[in-house]
Amino acid sequence: MTVPAFGEIDPPQRLLMGPGPVNVHPRVLRAMSADMLGQFDPEMTTYMNQTMALYRQVFMTENRWTFLIDGTARAGIEAALVSLIEPGMRVLLIRAGRFGLLLSEIAERIGADIRTLDLEWGEVATPEAIEAAIREHQPRVLACIHGDTSTTMAQPLEDLGTLCRRHDVLSYVDATATLGGMAVDVDGWGLDVVTAGLQKCMGGPPGSSPITISERAAEHIFARRHVEKGIRGADADDGYGARIGSNYFDLAMVMEYWSERRLNHHTEATTMLYGARECARVMIEEGLENRFARHRAAGAAMTAGLRALGLRVFGDDAHRMTNVTGVWIPEGVNGEAIRHRMREDFEIEIGTAFGPLAGKIWRIGTMGYNAMKHKVLLTLGALESTLTAEGFAVPRGAGVDAALMAWNHALPAALRNDRA
Amino acid sequence: MTVPAFGEIDPPQRLLMGPGPVNVHPRVLRAMSADMLGQFDPEMTTYMNQTMALYRQVFMTENRWTFLIDGTARAGIEAALVSLIEPGMRVLLIRAGRFGLLLSEIAERIGADIRTLDLEWGEVATPEAIEAAIREHQPRVLACIHGDTSTTMAQPLEDLGTLCRRHDVLSYVDATATLGGMAVDVDGWGLDVVTAGLQKCMGGPPGSSPITISERAAEHIFARRHVEKGIRGADADDGYGARIGSNYFDLAMVMEYWSERRLNHHTEATTMLYGARECARVMIEEGLENRFARHRAAGAAMTAGLRALGLRVFGDDAHRMTNVTGVWIPEGVNGEAIRHRMREDFEIEIGTAFGPLAGKIWRIGTMGYNAMKHKVLLTLGALESTLTAEGFAVPRGAGVDAALMAWNHALPAALRNDRA
Repeated sequence: MTVPAFGEIDPPQRLLMGPGPVNVHPRVLRAMSADMLGQFDPEMTTYMNQTMALYRQVFMTENRWTFLIDGTARAGIEAALVSLIEPGMRVLLIRAGRFGLLLSEIAERIGADIRTLDLEWGEVATPEAIEAAIREHQPRVLACIHGDTSTTMAQPLEDLGTLCRRHDVLSYVDATATLGGMAVDVDGWGLDVVTAGLQKCMGGPPGSSPITISERAAEHIFARRHVEKGIRGADADDGYGARIGSNYFDLAMVMEYWSERRLNHHTEATTMLYGARECARVMIEEGLENRFARHRAAGAAMTAGLRALGLRVFGDDAHRMTNVTGVWIPEGVNGEAIRHRMREDFEIEIGTAFGPLAGKIWRIGTMGYNAMKHKVLLTLGALESTLTAEGFAVPRGAGVDAALMAWNHALPAALRNDRA
Repeated sequence: MTVPAFGEIDPPQRLLMGPGPVNVHPRVLRAMSADMLGQFDPEMTTYMNQTMALYRQVFMTENRWTFLIDGTARAGIEAALVSLIEPGMRVLLIRAGRFGLLLSEIAERIGADIRTLDLEWGEVATPEAIEAAIREHQPRVLACIHGDTSTTMAQPLEDLGTLCRRHDVLSYVDATATLGGMAVDVDGWGLDVVTAGLQKCMGGPPGSSPITISERAAEHIFARRHVEKGIRGADADDGYGARIGSNYFDLAMVMEYWSERRLNHHTEATTMLYGARECARVMIEEGLENRFARHRAAGAAMTAGLRALGLRVFGDDAHRMTNVTGVWIPEGVNGEAIRHRMREDFEIEIGTAFGPLAGKIWRIGTMGYNAMKHKVLLTLGALESTLTAEGFAVPRGAGVDAALMAWNHALPAALRNDRA
């Protein structure tokens, strides 16, 4: 066996203006370079408790059960669904893009009785449509996506909790692409379970999924509790509900691990916890409202800049996510050739698309540490240049100018300079 | 809402001599501080391919399907079992400790037809006993633990593949606690699926689970392939087998993500991948045989030192793991008081135990970056002092002296000085 000549990790200094992962805040990377602690060392459990407290602020909730799932954002989605849904249980899924379809993929494997509220990619559901679907299908659980990056649209959620509680439905929301960039007002909106990731507007790396769980959802999940044989003592108090179909994603066990009981389950991913904790600290220090305003300004600037270049922005302005913008690839332009030039000449990445939008739109993110004025301007300048090089005439300089004006218009003077 | 006064991540510089997580090699932490790449950027997919090549060496295999699961070691176990086992399928589990029981916990949730070969905690199974159990139960899948840290014993595996192939059984081995410390000779032993973690002898943090899959196991898993609706094109080629019960842990999909097809699944946990890659580089540079010898020397030194202190080592020397040593807590000594003094006075952590061994033994790890001479000696010196302070008389200095002699005896002169 020979040693391969693979060198040190040394990625290019690329600006990631796709739909995530994006560049990580340097403070987060520094926090992640700290060494390990023992799993139950008092300093480690203190960090765990602090992480819970910090994510209560991030999720705008008082929920006791606010913690991390050790896996990517998709792990959080599966943990929520497999712990909420028993086989045969009726669920209603709102599907308006790729990640809405993912909910079905997961729920099917759980053996749920699936009903759907299907929309065109790019549409959002009205409260009336949601309530009508609840009345028709009478689900036990309703699941939807807050911001579906595949369509760049954000589903309004202000009324969701009220609707769900009126009909005794447990609500689940995937806020992977919005947490940290748009308000995810868990208590204000009355949501039951919400999960996310770090690699988008939280400004962290993929690999940890913050979750928050309401008391009534926790009660529902604890009714499915089952303590592992390897660690169960005389005090094991199993629930009456159907056992959760996954061990790793059994939230009843994961909650006991994060509780003062500290029942051993997996070994917490220490480095990812350090990173998640720092993501939340950075966000809280910036201030949630300031942070949301920064993302709004970045989205407005990007949208204005793209339009000034003569491009058509995808979807309805009223429901656009502030942190990712879809833009139609102009007739006759090779979308991949532009992405290649952007990366090769400018070290800037913009996103491609999935499903019915594949090859039709680019998706340009302004997320977390990248929702900054200079990054929006640099991206638009590079796009102008690459479009020109590919033979698509654009008004030179117009995108950057329009974006700068939109940025300044969107923010009070004190917040206009980059500080993420 | 107020900002909590939680400061920066700043853990104590503690020596983690428990059964894992242990201190991470500084090169691994440095590699993990690099910034993100786009998920399908060519540099990122190159790092993924290099990681596959590196882990083929680590697992001593030619298996094409050698990659990472994004989650802790337990995630790897569940991914392997849920992808191998269809509901109702006959499985044989060898159970001789906590992690053997964990196999049942996971297999039960999959709905497997479970048969077991049960042993006392601390025993290992003979090839004859394994073959007899295979003949009796005729399973499709056999699963066992290589090194069960709950008992500190290593199951001999040299004959397992031959036995399993003779009876057309697919074998699964959890090598979480041994990979990087003891030989895990996947091809030599003819194993089908093996998973591990980074946080033990690989010298990395928890949160990534290396996995390797033989061709015949991959074929079995691909027969259960199912492409997600959100990304499926006209070329979707679903398999004929029962759909895998988890989306996140669907190895057929995860393999397509790690293949040249790059079918989008989760977003690879970039930082953990950087860390996993560096763990493997460090190991390959040290040389596998040198590394196993270092762990053997550390285990021998720890065992000799503990005995010289008058303590009784747990279990049978013939099957002891080289990287974690169980030791009986002496009559009249409060095990937790010793652990507390070790941590408070010496910043050294040693492990407690689970199940029938809880409160009866300590578990002292010598894993990865901590399988070093000076760390063994410092731990034994501290243990001597704390035992004395708790009123248990030990021959002062004897543990350290005996350990140093055993270390030097175990290694050729060129390998005796610490370099992990």
